[in-house]
Amino acid sequence: MYSFKNDYNEGAHPKILNALIKSNMIQEEGYGYDTHTKNAASKIKKLVENQNIDIHFISGGTQVNLIAIGAFLKPHEACISADTGHIAVNETGAIEYTGHKVITIESDEGKVTTEKIQEVLNSHINEHVVKPSLVYITNSTELGTVYTKEEIKKLSEFCKSNNLILYVDGARLGSALCVKEADLTLLDMCKFTDAFTIGRTKNGAFLGEALVIKNENLKIDFKYHIKQKGALLAKGRFIGIQFEELFTDNLYFELANHANDMANLLSKGLKEANCKFLINSPTSQVFPILENKLIEKLEKKFSFYTWDKVDANHSAIRLVTSWVTKKKAILEFINE
Amino acid sequence: MYSFKNDYNEGAHPKILNALIKSNMIQEEGYGYDTHTKNAASKIKKLVENQNIDIHFISGGTQVNLIAIGAFLKPHEACISADTGHIAVNETGAIEYTGHKVITIESDEGKVTTEKIQEVLNSHINEHVVKPSLVYITNSTELGTVYTKEEIKKLSEFCKSNNLILYVDGARLGSALCVKEADLTLLDMCKFTDAFTIGRTKNGAFLGEALVIKNENLKIDFKYHIKQKGALLAKGRFIGIQFEELFTDNLYFELANHANDMANLLSKGLKEANCKFLINSPTSQVFPILENKLIEKLEKKFSFYTWDKVDANHSAIRLVTSWVTKKKAILEFINE
Amino acid sequence: MYSFKNDYNEGAHPKILNALIKSNMIQEEGYGYDTHTKNAASKIKKLVENQNIDIHFISGGTQVNLIAIGAFLKPHEACISADTGHIAVNETGAIEYTGHKVITIESDEGKVTTEKIQEVLNSHINEHVVKPSLVYITNSTELGTVYTKEEIKKLSEFCKSNNLILYVDGARLGSALCVKEADLTLLDMCKFTDAFTIGRTKNGAFLGEALVIKNENLKIDFKYHIKQKGALLAKGRFIGIQFEELFTDNLYFELANHANDMANLLSKGLKEANCKFLINSPTSQVFPILENKLIEKLEKKFSFYTWDKVDANHSAIRLVTSWVTKKKAILEFINE
Amino acid sequence: MYSFKNDYNEGAHPKILNALIKSNMIQEEGYGYDTHTKNAASKIKKLVENQNIDIHFISGGTQVNLIAIGAFLKPHEACISADTGHIAVNETGAIEYTGHKVITIESDEGKVTTEKIQEVLNSHINEHVVKPSLVYITNSTELGTVYTKEEIKKLSEFCKSNNLILYVDGARLGSALCVKEADLTLLDMCKFTDAFTIGRTKNGAFLGEALVIKNENLKIDFKYHIKQKGALLAKGRFIGIQFEELFTDNLYFELANHANDMANLLSKGLKEANCKFLINSPTSQVFPILENKLIEKLEKKFSFYTWDKVDANHSAIRLVTSWVTKKKAILEFINE
Repeated sequence: MYSFKNDYNEGAHPKILNALIKSNMIQEEGYGYDTHTKNAASKIKKLVENQNIDIHFISGGTQVNLIAIGAFLKPHEACISADTGHIAVNETGAIEYTGHKVITIESDEGKVTTEKIQEVLNSHINEHVVKPSLVYITNSTELGTVYTKEEIKKLSEFCKSNNLILYVDGARLGSALCVKEADLTLLDMCKFTDAFTIGRTKNGAFLGEALVIKNENLKIDFKYHIKQKGALLAKGRFIGIQFEELFTDNLYFELANHANDMANLLSKGLKEANCKFLINSPTSQVFPILENKLIEKLEKKFSFYTWDKVDANHSAIRLVTSWVTKKKAILEFINE
Repeated sequence: MYSFKNDYNEGAHPKILNALIKSNMIQEEGYGYDTHTKNAASKIKKLVENQNIDIHFISGGTQVNLIAIGAFLKPHEACISADTGHIAVNETGAIEYTGHKVITIESDEGKVTTEKIQEVLNSHINEHVVKPSLVYITNSTELGTVYTKEEIKKLSEFCKSNNLILYVDGARLGSALCVKEADLTLLDMCKFTDAFTIGRTKNGAFLGEALVIKNENLKIDFKYHIKQKGALLAKGRFIGIQFEELFTDNLYFELANHANDMANLLSKGLKEANCKFLINSPTSQVFPILENKLIEKLEKKFSFYTWDKVDANHSAIRLVTSWVTKKKAILEFINE
Repeated sequence: MYSFKNDYNEGAHPKILNALIKSNMIQEEGYGYDTHTKNAASKIKKLVENQNIDIHFISGGTQVNLIAIGAFLKPHEACISADTGHIAVNETGAIEYTGHKVITIESDEGKVTTEKIQEVLNSHINEHVVKPSLVYITNSTELGTVYTKEEIKKLSEFCKSNNLILYVDGARLGSALCVKEADLTLLDMCKFTDAFTIGRTKNGAFLGEALVIKNENLKIDFKYHIKQKGALLAKGRFIGIQFEELFTDNLYFELANHANDMANLLSKGLKEANCKFLINSPTSQVFPILENKLIEKLEKKFSFYTWDKVDANHSAIRLVTSWVTKKKAILEFINE
Repeated sequence: MYSFKNDYNEGAHPKILNALIKSNMIQEEGYGYDTHTKNAASKIKKLVENQNIDIHFISGGTQVNLIAIGAFLKPHEACISADTGHIAVNETGAIEYTGHKVITIESDEGKVTTEKIQEVLNSHINEHVVKPSLVYITNSTELGTVYTKEEIKKLSEFCKSNNLILYVDGARLGSALCVKEADLTLLDMCKFTDAFTIGRTKNGAFLGEALVIKNENLKIDFKYHIKQKGALLAKGRFIGIQFEELFTDNLYFELANHANDMANLLSKGLKEANCKFLINSPTSQVFPILENKLIEKLEKKFSFYTWDKVDANHSAIRLVTSWVTKKKAILEFINE
């Protein structure tokens, strides 16, 4: 049975495995002071054309969110997120555990708008309510949608003029940057945000997120926060090596492109079969609306999540493609 | 330059790498519901002859400590630790970040005694002070010493009769269980504690600790706590596979034995050269006292930590052996 | 200028002042072990016909909420509140600071229904989201509405069968219990809830809330939590005396009744002047909808909060009556 | 039976009661925006000759400590305290609950020295341990000793040059400032510290501490922190009035002087009876060492705490005088 449940069903890209084998018996410093971690950081700095950023490598997505937001905010400050945002719905209250409220706003297909942020600011004006200080967005979003360069720029300017930190959760940043219509690059991400993450668990690595911090105030003592939350790995080299490989010869974007291509192939095939969609996503998550009977039939050959009930007879399902997905699996699915 | 700085200078045991390669492209469930994680848990249950325990696999040592202690204690409760304990001195206030005080007691060569715990209980009797509810010990300790079976049993009985949780940080449990004089087995660990960890980062794996929970009250909803602290890996398989290998054909104990043997060889050689020691450790950490001049000379060929100043001309250094350490390196060091 | 802004514009009831004067120079034990605190607790136990409850006296409303909810929940557990609930909108993230998410549900005129709670339970079923464990309601609510005995009973049964704690914030409990149609008594409050508060700051005292805990599990070590959050007053007698007076000769209910009567007089007068209301409240908060011009005029003679914009020319204002409010002020307001 | 247990056995000074009566029925703004709170702040600003400080009035001592330290520190930062410090031993882990470690240093009769602080700094130099960022001292201390102006100045300079916040818990500041040999004034306190408190619960008020913040960085948004921890009283006037009275006509210092005088009378009398002391305290706490038999006899007429066992037949007791203590009680005690 083939699984479209997630983009982390398999292990890691063969190049990563090879790099692990090659470096295995060489002694390295611990806690991220090894040569691979340094190389990986250099490669990212080069890509964003900014030597003056701090880069930290952290195991997981929830982990990087809770460390970053927990470090960036003072106790009375809160973050703003779309109501579909990962920190709002899928992290078991990790942000609240760090002591901070997540103020949710109705999302526009998973995205945050300056108008909605402004409404929050209007209703948070004194000490009887929290102080909104950080805007959290995901790109691509939990619904597979992406922000265009223009949208990110607008958010960036709004945040700056309102003294808000702009932080982007890039668990699926690769797929977002490979959407041509969005016209957004890694360099833009660095230019327009205070901090953002580059996710890899969902793009060919065993695990790991890179956190890029540009804002000077947010850089201070950051390694203390990583250690305090239990995320400073003794063998930091293990994450370093994986990023080193992914940012060699463009591998990271190649893999993301492949996932998007497979998803687009899937969407196209389903459209031709007159299928409707819950949302039009240009990235690696596809949300077709199908008859419940067909879903039952498909479940015998494929595994995936049923996302939402649409009416008595139809539901939307979520199909996720990845760097591994084979054209053959897509075609088989479409033919069902 | 050869490093005796730590037991995590290298990558992982070749058998682990092979297992990663072999399983790499097989689709598995995420979040620890994969076949490897299940197998690894089965193997541990068999070793401790107890099917009724819960086992969780977590990336790092600080991480498992903060999740476990944070989950086990109520807000007003505190843990008791030796003043040399890892949570007391080397985790950047991770336990305090979860809201709990670490009450330290003067250690007996890194170890906790019932007499010292009793003193803490005597002075914590009302609502103006925290309520001590958990005893934290490390085995082997930060000073390389170990608890004997009798000592663990005594602690266990004392904790039970005083309604205290006994939790053991086993970041270097392998080396402790391989000290014959201690007469302690993995089965004993399970029998005499409420929860304990089995560390692997320092014994042949890329990363990972297994947390074994026996006490029924402490088992409840534990996966929520793992997720909330950002430690639930999407590709949980990655940790599962490593434990699966380490608990196949006794590999875990073989590697720990090797580390101990190399350390004993080192101690013996140094003793024969009339060297004194800060502490007599039967495990993989050796603390010889050397002339500062000699230390300077050694630092040109080996890397290690200077642990403590002993007098104007002498210091203690820490040498750590591991599953990788070669006899040749030991002999070279002794000959210097 | 007369203020309808709040029910805490004035000091305390004269009987309370007299009691303070009378007891002033008598030495008493500290930290709530004084005779007045004991008497106050006895009086409440008698009123609810239950000797087996624990009663704690705490300075403020936000304080008692954060201590109780912080003590009742485990780290991964969350509370459910109406989106208008005080903990959700007006406590500067106090509950989140204790580490817990507040899950909000759309309120029915400030009230929580079992149907909405059920929806929350349906979407919180695994470790990727928080575990809802406590239902928080206010009575009377922030909109001046009240729960009937039947409604409280239904909530109570639902919570019991779903293993949820039912906790009632009674900052304005007096006014709720004095609404005859609700048919609810202090005894019912104790019968149907796990814990609830009796507010006095808004009903004749300088400050103070009584927290009544009936659920055995929630009673354990509660004084530790009070002390840890800085709420254990050295001169606990000061709060004890005030409750002692308020629960002597029915004073507490007399004052609440007066506030309700004044509010009803106000509502009636406004209705006769053809005024509409944002909400029909039977308690001490009245929300008339007025022309903006009239509001401007009124603001010259009275102070109050403008609550909500209704249309281009109209807004709702909030008028709060209290134990002090004089009939004369009401009539003057109506005549404007 | 007369109690020397504490300085909060009685109610409040008659002038405070009169002021409460006088102002009782006047409507005031809530949450500390009332005229009394403003007046009280003005009076303090005048006394310290600094208009550019922020003053907040908070109910209790543990409360002000946890709010201030919790607001001043970032998550990875810790405070340094004497091992006898109130936050270290008598606040039920309140500081740890805010997430911060309290690093204790061996005290010099309850006092902190720059030498000991330097030792802490020397051992806290990287991300594996917390970052010490605040020095907490009490004046007068828990042992009744006081800092001289020179000592405070030295601490102040040391803290500044090491980028440490100097925060003084003045729960018994009055008694400290009335010790002539210390040569320390309220103005000096403001000059040499970043923030300090002026306690009143123990000096004639029902409750209340004033927190004075001079350091600009620490002032930001402070009212949010007060509200979030449940310490923003609706009837803030109640604390304001008490401070207003205490800082009128020097009442605060008069009361503190009386307490010191009574204590000195007590010490003198006991010395003349050849009594020894655990510590020589110039303030309102006296620690005579007495025969256990005599203690038993005294306990029939007076109540007090037995502080420490000295030998098989002797113990130290603690006698606390206050603004109320009568000469007659002192003489009666001495005569026993």
